[in-house]
Amino acid sequence: MVQGAINQNTKLTKEWLQNYVDDWVTFYRKHTKEGEVASYIPLLAQADKRHLGISITGINGMTIESGNVQIPFTIQSISKVFTFIIACMERGISYVLDRVDVEPTGAAFNSIMHLEMKQLKKPFNPFVNAGAITVTSLLNGKTSDEKLVPLFQLLENILGYRPRLNMDVFASEKESSMRNRAIGYYLVEIGSLESDLELTLETYFKQCSIEISLKDLARIGMILANDGEDPKTEKKIIPRQVARLAKALMLTCGMYNASGKFAAYVGIPAKSGVSGSIIAVSPPRARNEELPFLEGCGIGVYGPALDEQGNSIAGIRLLRHIAKQWDLSIF
Amino acid sequence: MVQGAINQNTKLTKEWLQNYVDDWVTFYRKHTKEGEVASYIPLLAQADKRHLGISITGINGMTIESGNVQIPFTIQSISKVFTFIIACMERGISYVLDRVDVEPTGAAFNSIMHLEMKQLKKPFNPFVNAGAITVTSLLNGKTSDEKLVPLFQLLENILGYRPRLNMDVFASEKESSMRNRAIGYYLVEIGSLESDLELTLETYFKQCSIEISLKDLARIGMILANDGEDPKTEKKIIPRQVARLAKALMLTCGMYNASGKFAAYVGIPAKSGVSGSIIAVSPPRARNEELPFLEGCGIGVYGPALDEQGNSIAGIRLLRHIAKQWDLSIF
Amino acid sequence: MVQGAINQNTKLTKEWLQNYVDDWVTFYRKHTKEGEVASYIPLLAQADKRHLGISITGINGMTIESGNVQIPFTIQSISKVFTFIIACMERGISYVLDRVDVEPTGAAFNSIMHLEMKQLKKPFNPFVNAGAITVTSLLNGKTSDEKLVPLFQLLENILGYRPRLNMDVFASEKESSMRNRAIGYYLVEIGSLESDLELTLETYFKQCSIEISLKDLARIGMILANDGEDPKTEKKIIPRQVARLAKALMLTCGMYNASGKFAAYVGIPAKSGVSGSIIAVSPPRARNEELPFLEGCGIGVYGPALDEQGNSIAGIRLLRHIAKQWDLSIF
Amino acid sequence: MVQGAINQNTKLTKEWLQNYVDDWVTFYRKHTKEGEVASYIPLLAQADKRHLGISITGINGMTIESGNVQIPFTIQSISKVFTFIIACMERGISYVLDRVDVEPTGAAFNSIMHLEMKQLKKPFNPFVNAGAITVTSLLNGKTSDEKLVPLFQLLENILGYRPRLNMDVFASEKESSMRNRAIGYYLVEIGSLESDLELTLETYFKQCSIEISLKDLARIGMILANDGEDPKTEKKIIPRQVARLAKALMLTCGMYNASGKFAAYVGIPAKSGVSGSIIAVSPPRARNEELPFLEGCGIGVYGPALDEQGNSIAGIRLLRHIAKQWDLSIF
Repeated sequence: MVQGAINQNTKLTKEWLQNYVDDWVTFYRKHTKEGEVASYIPLLAQADKRHLGISITGINGMTIESGNVQIPFTIQSISKVFTFIIACMERGISYVLDRVDVEPTGAAFNSIMHLEMKQLKKPFNPFVNAGAITVTSLLNGKTSDEKLVPLFQLLENILGYRPRLNMDVFASEKESSMRNRAIGYYLVEIGSLESDLELTLETYFKQCSIEISLKDLARIGMILANDGEDPKTEKKIIPRQVARLAKALMLTCGMYNASGKFAAYVGIPAKSGVSGSIIAVSPPRARNEELPFLEGCGIGVYGPALDEQGNSIAGIRLLRHIAKQWDLSIF
Repeated sequence: MVQGAINQNTKLTKEWLQNYVDDWVTFYRKHTKEGEVASYIPLLAQADKRHLGISITGINGMTIESGNVQIPFTIQSISKVFTFIIACMERGISYVLDRVDVEPTGAAFNSIMHLEMKQLKKPFNPFVNAGAITVTSLLNGKTSDEKLVPLFQLLENILGYRPRLNMDVFASEKESSMRNRAIGYYLVEIGSLESDLELTLETYFKQCSIEISLKDLARIGMILANDGEDPKTEKKIIPRQVARLAKALMLTCGMYNASGKFAAYVGIPAKSGVSGSIIAVSPPRARNEELPFLEGCGIGVYGPALDEQGNSIAGIRLLRHIAKQWDLSIF
Repeated sequence: MVQGAINQNTKLTKEWLQNYVDDWVTFYRKHTKEGEVASYIPLLAQADKRHLGISITGINGMTIESGNVQIPFTIQSISKVFTFIIACMERGISYVLDRVDVEPTGAAFNSIMHLEMKQLKKPFNPFVNAGAITVTSLLNGKTSDEKLVPLFQLLENILGYRPRLNMDVFASEKESSMRNRAIGYYLVEIGSLESDLELTLETYFKQCSIEISLKDLARIGMILANDGEDPKTEKKIIPRQVARLAKALMLTCGMYNASGKFAAYVGIPAKSGVSGSIIAVSPPRARNEELPFLEGCGIGVYGPALDEQGNSIAGIRLLRHIAKQWDLSIF
Repeated sequence: MVQGAINQNTKLTKEWLQNYVDDWVTFYRKHTKEGEVASYIPLLAQADKRHLGISITGINGMTIESGNVQIPFTIQSISKVFTFIIACMERGISYVLDRVDVEPTGAAFNSIMHLEMKQLKKPFNPFVNAGAITVTSLLNGKTSDEKLVPLFQLLENILGYRPRLNMDVFASEKESSMRNRAIGYYLVEIGSLESDLELTLETYFKQCSIEISLKDLARIGMILANDGEDPKTEKKIIPRQVARLAKALMLTCGMYNASGKFAAYVGIPAKSGVSGSIIAVSPPRARNEELPFLEGCGIGVYGPALDEQGNSIAGIRLLRHIAKQWDLSIF
């Protein structure tokens, strides 16, 4: 088994860390063959299941990257974090939380039955599809493009450029997502949506089809690790309360119905998408004073081979190993 | 509304903090009338629903107490944390986690249907009754007293004395807990239990009937905050990995089906019991350097008036307020 | 309590029976105030909840009517019986039963969760919405009007005229039935539908909006009682096997999640619609030789005040009383 | 495929029918290898899965038997019909139906989750285990033997002898039925039981362990077909209303979660037991005047190889074939 426990007596250099991360990516890439790429959105099925890449960006500015870091991907369910943040910024936290609960479910991300079983009037949490669609319906704007203006602005504020929308994935998504329409009409019936359903779904499929890079994902994670503030410019990009709430939800509900296991075995807020991407956030803690790089960082992982819960199979193992070696767990 | 935001430029004294906590307890005691004491265990129904108390013990040794801190109470479901820790110490973490999952459920603590619905062969997590009974069955020993020896030893190591068993509560519990027997026989059928059912249930009812004080609860929480080590003697009482795993589970599954809300609104690991007691753990973080007392502390709360999920109704609000004022959230 | 037990020693005349039925309708009309008219389709909400009427047509040609027999109504879910019959006639019984099961569910008619809970690939039965929509998708034809040609032809063969479509109800239904769209998209996803969803739903809403009279309903029931054959002309309108299968399904699944109670307390095949209409079928039995009128009859009931399960509250009680007095139960 | 359609122009002789039935039993015995004997009660697992036998007794006194008719078997869930009848005789129908509903469930016979899911205060119907255990608790008597006195008396009245209790099966059942204990404690908690749980379960296991023959089963079925009256002596053994209610429940709930299919494909009231036995009831109908033997008969089938729902796999097919050939369906 590869090793890389931190030496508490040494200031670790970037090179030193880079070597370890390279080893780990090589080691965990083997696990990609145990998973399968998502098939329900035709375009996602074209991904190369052998890919695995990681990007880590510290609050202190250092960056480490390894593996397949150049493949662009659509963010899919990771967008649920962003629209939740935007909705809280536009409407206020309490308005949003009146319309979507924050409980983990133990059920699959695309479950309808939990709504019916408990005769719920609001979805379980913003990261199951029912909750995410509800949150998207809260965004201001009369067209899907208008609704997404603040989200693109937020990403531009963080990344320094405006990410593109992958129109092919959007079209593929729009055509194939029958379950989301089923959920959508259920939500209309129970009065959950504040926008027209077609508009809401179009917006939802667009947000899922935003294409970014691993470096971007890591940088967004780092801003969340720093409670929404850019550490260089000290500009507040996301309100502190919203950033922290988003992290709490990522920890309890971010990894589909493997969220509990991720919290127990990895222990940091994260959100995955069906493209095989994961955004993870390591908030600063007192523990790593010898390793200032790790005192708060964002992590992006990409590995399109998925496990049964829909998470990157090698990506989760890689994150688990890193979290253990570098003692990242927030607990 | 009472106030008590920390002054980042001042070294806060114990007296200063004490004043705030006294105010807050007085304020939140009003909410006790919105809840009800547990009725399904006859003896618990005798508790005084107006009671509310809190005890906070910092890793640095300071203690603050306020309200009804002298009432002894049985720990009920809080014991699930302790037997989980003991089982991991006796059998190893991976042995235990092969027999109980670590996913939050979205279901009530005493649900059977989730086992059946998903044809699960292991309970959702160690803090729902099905999981806790399974964990108790893993404890070594041929009698319930033998099985509980290590737990009592652990508590004595932490508290300096051996807590008593409230035999009246034990008897009341044993007699009235039909649902736990239903769950127990279901577990026997699916092969989850490693001890005889009657022995397991007797042990389970005993562990629930351990009686301690608020000060004790806070001290145990503080040891967990310090990853299982006594900060004074530097003695390792609970293995570090086990302590951190326990905290992760407390965050995702500790507050019944309000765990997600507690994580979002309070943001620290906690476990509640139907007696109205809560143990909460604030791990050290870099943020509070001006307030060293809060750099890692354990909190005990007691308020027997419960909300619908079975958590202390005033206790949760008090904790939420403190966590917000003192910025305790781990996110 | 009113009485009307059959006199086994007397040939009962129509007049004699008519008097009893008039009394019973008067008596049970009082129960209409305990129910509510359907509100989810706006136009149905305009019905007069005090209405109650019944029409009975014997295989021997006799007819008894009482109460509000002149109010036209849309057949709503009663159409599920007719499209099931047509689908069996067009595709064959085994083709249809490969695509929809025939089990009662214990769940509400508009439940989605039962599909998801058991990961079913076919709906529970043709009389829950999910099953009925699936059956409608099996009908031949490229437009909704084309698909319904055989159904209208069947009705014309039985009734001697072509019933009208209530276009206002159709429009109201189309606009308001969000749950049916949710179910529809779920069915698309699991591959249940053989026609385009919009086409299927349009057809479904149209079939529900067919408007007939109580006398019509009784006559259709009588044809079913006679195993699909017109007793006068001896023309086979519905194949015998199909008619009997339809009656079996009506008994086990016809009255929503009160089907078991209806079988136990009334004991004849029946199907209700949310307009407050019920079609009931009393197959010929050896028992009623003194009362040849009752040796096979069809019954139509209309009473728009519904109970919690969505059945005519007074209509069910009236049927229960008649079935008991005249010993109609098939058991 | 074997044939045996009734010749409408001929008075069929017993010999003629016997030949057909012999052929059919031979033909359908092949299907026994597609099933498995019940394994959860150890003693039942010893049955010979190749066995298949049938006994038919007409109201007119004629009897036809074929195949393995000499193997004694325990009645298992068939006893649920008998205790339901006794409870109705002792307490009155409405008392019993206040404590157990009469809805089919779509769920397995040993389901707990349906109780919890709908927060039911009474079990779905008397033929799922939860309902049957509730019904057994209603029987008068302070010991299990006392409680069963009227049931044994009933059987003696019908059969002319007192059946034995298979004490080995009883012991095996008592030891192995953990799920029934789980259900039992759940029922205690919701207040469903009117007797002590241990006493109720002992009675329940005993009633399941009554051993009879195929001829007995057919004779009991014939009495039910004749609405509870012995056709020879004209003695009323079971009240008419109770007999007919029992038949209605058999049709909607008698064959576990294949009850709907049995009603659709066979169409007569029946109840199966996990021993592979089935009691079926063909009430008299006007249709078979050419075949007076079939004008009301009881049928016993035994074939211990079970299908997935727990019904005799060959037995069901044999019954389906006979019902079709002889036009037995009550619809």
